[in-house]
Amino acid sequence: MTIRVTIWNEGRHEQTDAPVRAIYPDRIDGAIAAGLANRDFKIERATLDDPEQGLPTELLDRTDVLLWWGHVAHDEVADAAIDRVQQRILAGMGLVVLHSGHHSKMFRRMMGTNCNLAWRELPEGDLERVWVTNPGHPIADGLPPFFEIPQSEMYGEPFDIPAADEIIMISWFKGGEVFRSGLTFQRGLGRIFYFSPGHETFPIYHDPMVHKVIGNGIEWAMRPHGGARKLDNWHREEPIHR
Amino acid sequence: MTIRVTIWNEGRHEQTDAPVRAIYPDRIDGAIAAGLANRDFKIERATLDDPEQGLPTELLDRTDVLLWWGHVAHDEVADAAIDRVQQRILAGMGLVVLHSGHHSKMFRRMMGTNCNLAWRELPEGDLERVWVTNPGHPIADGLPPFFEIPQSEMYGEPFDIPAADEIIMISWFKGGEVFRSGLTFQRGLGRIFYFSPGHETFPIYHDPMVHKVIGNGIEWAMRPHGGARKLDNWHREEPIHR
Amino acid sequence: MTIRVTIWNEGRHEQTDAPVRAIYPDRIDGAIAAGLANRDFKIERATLDDPEQGLPTELLDRTDVLLWWGHVAHDEVADAAIDRVQQRILAGMGLVVLHSGHHSKMFRRMMGTNCNLAWRELPEGDLERVWVTNPGHPIADGLPPFFEIPQSEMYGEPFDIPAADEIIMISWFKGGEVFRSGLTFQRGLGRIFYFSPGHETFPIYHDPMVHKVIGNGIEWAMRPHGGARKLDNWHREEPIHR
Amino acid sequence: MTIRVTIWNEGRHEQTDAPVRAIYPDRIDGAIAAGLANRDFKIERATLDDPEQGLPTELLDRTDVLLWWGHVAHDEVADAAIDRVQQRILAGMGLVVLHSGHHSKMFRRMMGTNCNLAWRELPEGDLERVWVTNPGHPIADGLPPFFEIPQSEMYGEPFDIPAADEIIMISWFKGGEVFRSGLTFQRGLGRIFYFSPGHETFPIYHDPMVHKVIGNGIEWAMRPHGGARKLDNWHREEPIHR
Repeated sequence: MTIRVTIWNEGRHEQTDAPVRAIYPDRIDGAIAAGLANRDFKIERATLDDPEQGLPTELLDRTDVLLWWGHVAHDEVADAAIDRVQQRILAGMGLVVLHSGHHSKMFRRMMGTNCNLAWRELPEGDLERVWVTNPGHPIADGLPPFFEIPQSEMYGEPFDIPAADEIIMISWFKGGEVFRSGLTFQRGLGRIFYFSPGHETFPIYHDPMVHKVIGNGIEWAMRPHGGARKLDNWHREEPIHR
Repeated sequence: MTIRVTIWNEGRHEQTDAPVRAIYPDRIDGAIAAGLANRDFKIERATLDDPEQGLPTELLDRTDVLLWWGHVAHDEVADAAIDRVQQRILAGMGLVVLHSGHHSKMFRRMMGTNCNLAWRELPEGDLERVWVTNPGHPIADGLPPFFEIPQSEMYGEPFDIPAADEIIMISWFKGGEVFRSGLTFQRGLGRIFYFSPGHETFPIYHDPMVHKVIGNGIEWAMRPHGGARKLDNWHREEPIHR
Repeated sequence: MTIRVTIWNEGRHEQTDAPVRAIYPDRIDGAIAAGLANRDFKIERATLDDPEQGLPTELLDRTDVLLWWGHVAHDEVADAAIDRVQQRILAGMGLVVLHSGHHSKMFRRMMGTNCNLAWRELPEGDLERVWVTNPGHPIADGLPPFFEIPQSEMYGEPFDIPAADEIIMISWFKGGEVFRSGLTFQRGLGRIFYFSPGHETFPIYHDPMVHKVIGNGIEWAMRPHGGARKLDNWHREEPIHR
Repeated sequence: MTIRVTIWNEGRHEQTDAPVRAIYPDRIDGAIAAGLANRDFKIERATLDDPEQGLPTELLDRTDVLLWWGHVAHDEVADAAIDRVQQRILAGMGLVVLHSGHHSKMFRRMMGTNCNLAWRELPEGDLERVWVTNPGHPIADGLPPFFEIPQSEMYGEPFDIPAADEIIMISWFKGGEVFRSGLTFQRGLGRIFYFSPGHETFPIYHDPMVHKVIGNGIEWAMRPHGGARKLDNWHREEPIHR
C-alpha cells in the first residue's frame, strides 16, 4: 500500500546560507525525497514559509507519515499548528523527527520534556558510528551491525526525553560521547520515530544508509489509521452490568 | 528526612456545591492533609484562587512533591503556571496527580497526549476494586492484594497516555470496566504518580487505604534533587578526544 | 507473504477426557487451525506425543510462528526440546502462548519468572470481558472496544511476569478480578505474544473473535528472520580505532 | 537499616592465575567488600568452592542483596543452586550482576536470553567512558556526568537481553564501540542491577567510582521483602461477586 508522506522542512538555512544551499540545492526535503524515490511512497514537500506554515489541515488529512526538520525557527511555528499536528498524531498519523527537530515545539509537545542534550559542532565534523542495538526491529531491516557518518554534529547524553518504547540505535562519537540515536515512542494511536543523524552543513541527507533508516522508519510509523477508533472521551452513561 | 509536600486543589466545588462541602468541610486538600498527618511530611495547601493561582515560584522552590487535584477549572490555570511547574518537575520535583487531574493541563503537558478515558458517574457510585499488580513496588508497601472503594466514579479503558514506566494497580468496576489506576512516569529528573480513585461527591479522600497509597506515592516521588544536575543544554565545545 | 505456522498442542485432554473431546473433536489445535483458515498461513499441527515431542529441529526450521498450548503435562516436555525452541525464538521465530501455557516450561524459560497468577474454574465458567487498552497496536486491528467470553476460566492478578513490552488487552471478570490478558515481549530477535482467553472445557477456541486475535498475533509475531543477524557472541579482536 | 550483602565470587582466577592474584590478593570479592566498608552493609563473602557452591539456603535466607561475579566456571554452578537463587530473587532478594556475570547461568536464567555481546580483551585494555544517561535515578546519586575506566575489557552492542526497565549508563570505548553498561530489571518481587565495568586482570574493583556505583546499586536493589506477599499460585475457589 502506498504511504502518503509529507516532508516538512523549516527551510530557512537554504534561503540564507550559501554553503547549505551548495550542499542541498533542492533543500533538505528535496534530498530526502530523492533518497526515498525507490519506496512505495507518495511524497509531498512543505516548508514553514508556505501558507499556514506548511501544515494546513487538508495536507495533514492526506498524510500518513509526517517528517519534521527544523532548526533555527522552532519558535516561529504557531501553537495552533502544533495543536493540529499533535491531534493528527494522536489519531494515528506517524511522525519522524530528524536531528535538530529534537528541540522543536512539535517534539517537545509530544514528549513533555525539554529534550535537551549535549552537542558540539566542529567545522570538520565528528565521526559518528551508529550501532544497531535492536537488530530484530523493522526499522533495522537490512542494516549492518553499524554504519558511519564521517562528518556529523555531535549529539550526546544525557538526552532529556521520557524512556523510549524501543531503542533501535546508539551512536558513538570519535570525540568521546554516546547518544541514543534511533528511538520509538507511541502516543495515542500514532507512532513516533526520532533519528538524530543529519545536519544542514554536512551531506548526511545524501547518504543512502540514512535514506534506508528514514524509509524504514516511515514504513514502521505508518498505521492504517483510517478506521481506527480515536481515543475520545467516552461517556458510558449506563453500566454494562448492574 | 522530612518531605515538603504541597497539596494543590482547584478548590471550586467546595465553594459552590453544598454536598461537596458537606463531605469535605475542610476541602479536599484538607482531608488529604489530615490523612497524611502520620507521615514525616511538612504540608502546605494551596488553591487556584490563591495569589498566582497557588503556584508561585517561592512555593514551588520549597516543594519536594506536589499533589494536584482539579476538575472543573482546568482551563483557568494559566499557561505560565503550567510552564513553571513543568520546569520544576523536570528539575526533580515529584508530582502526584489525583483522579480528574488526568484531564488537567498539567498532566496533559507532561504526557503529551489527551489523557482521555471512559467514565460514568452514578448517584450511588460504582463499586471499584483496586488490584495491586506490582506488589514489589514501594508504592504498594503495606497494601493487601486488593482494596475496595465502595462508591466510586468509574474511569475506564482505553486511557490515552504514553505507556507507563510501571503499572502498580489495575481497577475493576462492578459496572463492567477496567482501568490502570496506579501508574508511574519519570520525566526529566522528576517522578510522577497518577492515582485515579477519588471524587468530590464521595468520601474517598477520607479513606485510610487511599491515604496510604497517596502517602506511599509521595515518598516514592521524593528525590533529593537539590544536588542533582539539571538536564540542561550542554555545549561541549571541545572534543574529549581528538 | 505466506506465514508458516505450527500449532503445538500438548493434546492430552483430548485423549482422556470425553467432555473435552466433545467440544474439540479435532483437538484444540484443529479448532484453532480451522479458525485461521481465512489467513495466508501454511499451518502444521503437532502434539506432545508425536516423535521428538512434536518439536523436531526440521519442523522448527520451517516454522515462522509457533503456537503453544499445554496444561497438564508441562513437566513432560524435555529440557532439550525447550532449549531448541528457545534458541529458535532468539533467532527470530515468533511464539504465541495460549492460556494455561503461562505455566509451561517454555514460557517460564523465556520470562525468567514463575508466571504464577490467581485462578478459578467454575463448572459454568466466569464471564470475561476483554478490554482493548492499546487500540493502535496491530494485534488490535479490527477489534471492537471490548469483547466477551461468556464462559471462561478466571485468570487474575498479580501475574508474575516481567513488565510486558506492550499491554494490548486487560480482562474484567464477573467474579471480581482483572488480568493483563494480551501482552507482547521481545526476546532476542523473536517476538512473543501471550493471550490468556482459552480453555479445554469451554468452546473458546471456536470463537471467531478469539481467532481474530490469534491471527493478528501471528501476523505481528512474524519476522522475516531468515536474513537477520543472530545475536551471537562476537569477538572483535581488533579495535576499530586506535 | 543495615543491608545484608553477600558477595558471591566464582573465585577461580585468584587460585590459578598469578597476575590476578597480584591485583586482587584478597580476591575480587575482598576488593569489593573493602570498597563498600563505608556503607551500612553487613557483608558476607562466598565462592564456588565453598560448601553447597557458596549458595546454601541459610545464607540466601539471610541475604538482602546478592552480588554475582563469575567468568570461567559458569557451567559448574549446579542447576539446583540456580533454582534456589532464582526463587529467592523472585521472593524479593536483590541481585547485582557484575561484568562477565552477563554469561552466567544465573543472569541468563533471569533474562530468558543468551545475553551475548561483542567483546575485546587487549593486554593494555580499552579506555571506557561511562556516561550517566539517567541522572535522576538513585543508582546515579553522586555520580558526575561521566567517569572513566582507563583499562577495561570492551563489551559492545548488540547485547542480547530483554529491554531493560531502566538504562542508567551507556559506555563509550576508545576502540569504537558502545554498550548499555548500567541496567535495571524487576523479576517477581526482586530487583536486578547489571553493571558491566570490571575485570580480573585490571584493577577496576579497586576504583572508588566503581565502588560508589555498586554501593548505590545494592541500596537500590534492597527491598524490605520480609513482609511482602510472594507471587504464588492463588486458587480463588469462590467468586468475590456472584
